[in-house]
Amino acid sequence: MEIALEEARAAGARGEVPVGACVVLGDRVVARAGNRTRELHDPTAHAEVLALRAACAVLGSERLGGHDLYVTLEPCPMCAAAISFARIGRLYFGASDPKSGGVTVGARVYSHPQCHHVPEVYDGIAAGEAERLLKDFFAGRRD
Amino acid sequence: MEIALEEARAAGARGEVPVGACVVLGDRVVARAGNRTRELHDPTAHAEVLALRAACAVLGSERLGGHDLYVTLEPCPMCAAAISFARIGRLYFGASDPKSGGVTVGARVYSHPQCHHVPEVYDGIAAGEAERLLKDFFAGRRD
Repeated sequence: MEIALEEARAAGARGEVPVGACVVLGDRVVARAGNRTRELHDPTAHAEVLALRAACAVLGSERLGGHDLYVTLEPCPMCAAAISFARIGRLYFGASDPKSGGVTVGARVYSHPQCHHVPEVYDGIAAGEAERLLKDFFAGRRD
Repeated sequence: MEIALEEARAAGARGEVPVGACVVLGDRVVARAGNRTRELHDPTAHAEVLALRAACAVLGSERLGGHDLYVTLEPCPMCAAAISFARIGRLYFGASDPKSGGVTVGARVYSHPQCHHVPEVYDGIAAGEAERLLKDFFAGRRD
């Protein structure tokens, strides 16, 4: 999660909402990314999607069975579904996202029979630091 | 929708699940795409995501206000959320997808307060042809 937090800080420094993610296989970091929606003019360029796409490119496969994903914020429905499609084994996330999340609130993507692969979900990992980054970012934007 | 169906047929001819999409602004086609998850080794490379990303690249913006999206199949939760993030005005889709859809079934992405932009949704547009393409594709794979 420390690597995901580094990516979140780097995203914030670029003027992006500070969210970071990394894909790991055991002890090995396969891909890491921060949010780049503004820079890339791409509404799908959330940290999770970029990390998944990069890991798939490394493996030459659209599936990442046995891989885990760390992300500093609860995934939105788009990312939650992408994580399922990629067959991620374990999802570790930091801060909860009651406003836009799609795992524990709202769409609850993993809670329906239309979701064909459900990762194990572990929440609240380094949540304090992940949340602080987001709060500071949005407080800075309001100033 | 005829353009989306053309993209679906082309996807099927490439060995991909035959789904196609296009983004329009009034009468103008801004971007069109078919599913390329296998070719690109990218679980996020659904027709809708590729069409949205291409349209955003054309416009140099992560938002497509005033644009509409046609897709031959009911979007999954990933695509439904991406369509919302892109601020698509109207979503026209063809066949329903009770097994994996995320608009009218399952996650019902647009039905929660965590979804901050809800497009107008029109279903069943050329649904017969869209469904026939999918059924023929999967029947062919079983043979």
